Amino acid sequence: MEFEALKKTPVFQALSSIGKRIYQPNGIFYWSNRAKKEAKINATIGTAVGFETDIIDGGREKLLTYYLPELKQYINLPPEKFASYAPIAGIPKFRDLWEKWIIYKGKNAINLPSGTINVSGKITKPAICNGITNSIFLVSRFFLNPGEKIICPNKRWGNYNSVLHLQNELEIETFQFFKDDKLNIEGISELMLQISKVQDKIVLILNFPNNPTGYCPTKNEIQDILNSLKNFCDSSNKPVIIFCDDAYEGYSYSDHRVGTSIFYELIDLHPNLIPIKLDGASKEFLMYGGRTGAITLGINSSWLSSSEKEIFLQEWENKIQGMIRSTISNSNHFYQEVLIEIMNLGFEKMQESRNKIYEILKKRYFASINAFEKYKTEGITMDPAGGGFFVFLNIDKIQADKFADHLLLKYKVGTFPIVSEKEEINGIRVAFCSIPLEKIEETFRRIRLTLSDLS
Amino acid sequence: MEFEALKKTPVFQALSSIGKRIYQPNGIFYWSNRAKKEAKINATIGTAVGFETDIIDGGREKLLTYYLPELKQYINLPPEKFASYAPIAGIPKFRDLWEKWIIYKGKNAINLPSGTINVSGKITKPAICNGITNSIFLVSRFFLNPGEKIICPNKRWGNYNSVLHLQNELEIETFQFFKDDKLNIEGISELMLQISKVQDKIVLILNFPNNPTGYCPTKNEIQDILNSLKNFCDSSNKPVIIFCDDAYEGYSYSDHRVGTSIFYELIDLHPNLIPIKLDGASKEFLMYGGRTGAITLGINSSWLSSSEKEIFLQEWENKIQGMIRSTISNSNHFYQEVLIEIMNLGFEKMQESRNKIYEILKKRYFASINAFEKYKTEGITMDPAGGGFFVFLNIDKIQADKFADHLLLKYKVGTFPIVSEKEEINGIRVAFCSIPLEKIEETFRRIRLTLSDLS
Repeated sequence: MEFEALKKTPVFQALSSIGKRIYQPNGIFYWSNRAKKEAKINATIGTAVGFETDIIDGGREKLLTYYLPELKQYINLPPEKFASYAPIAGIPKFRDLWEKWIIYKGKNAINLPSGTINVSGKITKPAICNGITNSIFLVSRFFLNPGEKIICPNKRWGNYNSVLHLQNELEIETFQFFKDDKLNIEGISELMLQISKVQDKIVLILNFPNNPTGYCPTKNEIQDILNSLKNFCDSSNKPVIIFCDDAYEGYSYSDHRVGTSIFYELIDLHPNLIPIKLDGASKEFLMYGGRTGAITLGINSSWLSSSEKEIFLQEWENKIQGMIRSTISNSNHFYQEVLIEIMNLGFEKMQESRNKIYEILKKRYFASINAFEKYKTEGITMDPAGGGFFVFLNIDKIQADKFADHLLLKYKVGTFPIVSEKEEINGIRVAFCSIPLEKIEETFRRIRLTLSDLS
Repeated sequence: MEFEALKKTPVFQALSSIGKRIYQPNGIFYWSNRAKKEAKINATIGTAVGFETDIIDGGREKLLTYYLPELKQYINLPPEKFASYAPIAGIPKFRDLWEKWIIYKGKNAINLPSGTINVSGKITKPAICNGITNSIFLVSRFFLNPGEKIICPNKRWGNYNSVLHLQNELEIETFQFFKDDKLNIEGISELMLQISKVQDKIVLILNFPNNPTGYCPTKNEIQDILNSLKNFCDSSNKPVIIFCDDAYEGYSYSDHRVGTSIFYELIDLHPNLIPIKLDGASKEFLMYGGRTGAITLGINSSWLSSSEKEIFLQEWENKIQGMIRSTISNSNHFYQEVLIEIMNLGFEKMQESRNKIYEILKKRYFASINAFEKYKTEGITMDPAGGGFFVFLNIDKIQADKFADHLLLKYKVGTFPIVSEKEEINGIRVAFCSIPLEKIEETFRRIRLTLSDLS
C-alpha cells in the first residue's frame, strides 16, 4: 500500500516516524479472506475449528471455533459470539453501530455553537481498541516522536503522565486550565504559538467533561476555542492535531454547558486541523470492565475528492490496523457482541436505560454544588464544573495531601489529593459519582470541618 | 520506589531505557486503597457507584458499580464480575490461579530433561495483559531500545515482524530454524556471540510448539539448548533474556517431544539468564476472544536473599503495572472471572474438558503426517513438527505464493504461503487445527496434485 490518498492530506505529514512506517501486511489476512470465499477446505485459520457435535452432546453440525463447553453456562450468547478472535479493529457490525452512534450524537448535539451537526460521511470507521487509555497511547504514538511536545491542561487525568511521558517519552507542555473561572484559551494559544516555533506540528488533547474538575465548556467558550484555533491555523501552516478524549461525553448536567464533544465542530473548521475522537464504553455505556474504546478521525471536506476518499479510508484503516495488530492484536470479543445487542435495541432505548444512572449522577452533581455553596469559606474554591464524575476543590494554604489525610483519618471521607507546585495545583478531587446522594452534604460538611481543623 | 532489590539482579541492568524509567505512581491507587479500608464515605472512585436498588427492580441494597441492566440477560455472573474495572495487572484471585497453573504444569512436565520441576516460589505473580501479542509488545519494549537486536528463528509467526520491528523499531536477527532436520542450535549460538560483541544484552525469543512449523523439540534438543545457553553465559558477562512464547504450550502430540515450556529449565540455569514466560488463554483455554495473556518472570535462586525477594517482587510488580497502565490500563474483566470459575473446577477437570479438543487435534496431526508421507514426492518436504496447530511444507522449485494460489483456485484448498528469499523460506503453512479429520488426507492429495500441475 502506497498511502497515496493519505499523502494528499495533512494527516500523513503529521504522522510520527512510526505512524509513517506502520502498516498492516496483507499476509495471512489476504489468504484467509480468500479462503473463506474460495476454499472448500480452509487450512489457513490458526484456531482449532471443528464440528460442535465433536465436543458437546447435542451440539450443532456446524464448523465453529472450539471452546471449553463449561463457558456456555456463563454466557447467554452462542459461542460464535465469544470464542473466536474479533477482527483486528473490531467486529464490523459493532463498528457500524459505533459510527451510527457518533452520527446520532452529532444530530442530537446539546449546546454546540452550530446546533446539531451531521458528520455522516465525514468520519472514518471507528477502530476498536482496549479502552480510552489504549486509544490515547496509540494515537499519541501514531502522531508524535519521542521527545516531541503535546499540550495538556495542568488539571488533567494523572494517567496522561504515564501514557504520554513515561511510556511514549513525550514532553507534556501545560497551560493553566482556568483563568478567572473560565477556560484559559489564551493559555492554549500561547503554547500553540510557542510550540509551532520548534516543532512541525501542534498536538493538543482536550477532555470535556474533564477529569479531575468535571469542567464542561459553555457554548461561548466553545466558540472562543474554535475562533482561536481557526486564527492559529490561518496564520500557521502546520498541522494541528486535536485528540478529543471523550470519556465522559454525554455527562453534562448544566443547561448552559456543552454536552456534546467539540469534535463535531472541529471537522470542517480548517484544512490543517486534524480532529481525532477517542471514545470509551467504560463511562458511556457503564462498561468499565469491557475495555472497549474507539478511535475515529474527522475528515475535512477539502482534503479529498469523493473517489480519493474511498482510498483514503482504506489507507487509514490499514495504518490503524497496523497499530492495533502490533500492540494488542485485537480487542476482546464478548463485550463487543453484548454492546451490539444493546445498541440494536435502538439508541433511544439504550439512552433510556442509561438515563436512570445519568439522573442519579446529575442529582449528586447539584447536591455537591449546593453543599459546597452551603459550607464554603475562605481558603477553598471549586473549579468550574458542569459535568462528568468529579468536582475539584482548590485549597489555599494547607498542603492537599495533608488535607486529604486528615479528612480520611478524622472524618472517614476518602478523596484524591493532587499536588503539583510546578503546575500550581493543590486540591482534592471529590468523586461525587461514587457518593450516595444522602451522603453528599455530609461529605462537604466534613471537608469544611477539616479546613477549620487545619487552618 | 527506588527499585533497590531489582538493581541487585541482572534484570535491572537488562532493562531498556523505558524499562528503567517506567513505574506505577502511587497516586490514586494509594488513596483509593486507603479509602477502601478507612473511609465511611469513599469519594475516590472514578466510576458511577450506587445501590443496585436505584437502577433495577428487585436489586440488592448493596453499593456496586452501576451497569446497564440489559447486560444481565447475557451474563450468568453477578454484575460485580463484569461491570467494574479489573485491577491493572489482573484480578488477584485469577493471578493466584494462573500462578498455580504454571506451577502445576511444571510438576506435571512432559519430557523435560530434568523431569518434573517445582517452580513454586521461583516465579513472579503472573501479570495479566491483553493476550500474547500484547505481552510480546510489552516485554520487548521493557527490555530493548529502538535499534537494538532481538534473535528470532527465520520460521516465526508473521506478527513478530509487526510487533518487534515495525512497532518497537527493533532489528530482528534471524537464524535458520532447522539444520539437517534438527533445531539449529549452532545458529542460535553464533548469533548470540555476534550480538554480544555489539550490544550489552542478548535477547532471544523461543516459541515451542512453533508457529508456523508446529515444531516441538525433543528432550535431547532441549538439553542441547540448555548446554549451549549455559556455555554462552559462562563465557559472557552479559544478561541473556529469553522470551518463552508459550502460546501453544501443552499441544505436543509426539511421545518423544517436549510438551512443557523450556521456561522451567531456564530458571536456575545461570544467574545471567533471565527467562520470561508469555502465556495466553487463547489456545491454552481455547479462549481466543478473551484477550487474556500473562507475563511471568523466572527468578534465579542466586539473585536475592529471601527478604530481598519480597521487595523484588513488589518492585517488579510496580514496573509491570507501570507498563500495563500506560498502554492498555487493564484487561477486560469478564473473561478473567470466567476463567476463575473454570480453573476453580480444578486443573484436572479443566484439562479433562480441554482434552476432548486436544485429542481431536492430535488425530488431525497424525493424519497430516501420514497423509504427507503417503503423497510425498520430490520437491516438497515437511519441517520437523510434533505439536501445535500447523505443519509447514517447504517447496523446492515453485514460488509458494503461486503454489498456494493454484491450490486454492483449482483445488479449493486454502493455505498460507510464506516466502522470503532473504530468510530462505518458500513454503506453505497447513493449519490442520481447522481441517476436519476426514478431509485431511484429501488436503494433502490436492497439495500433491498442485505440485504435479506446476512441476
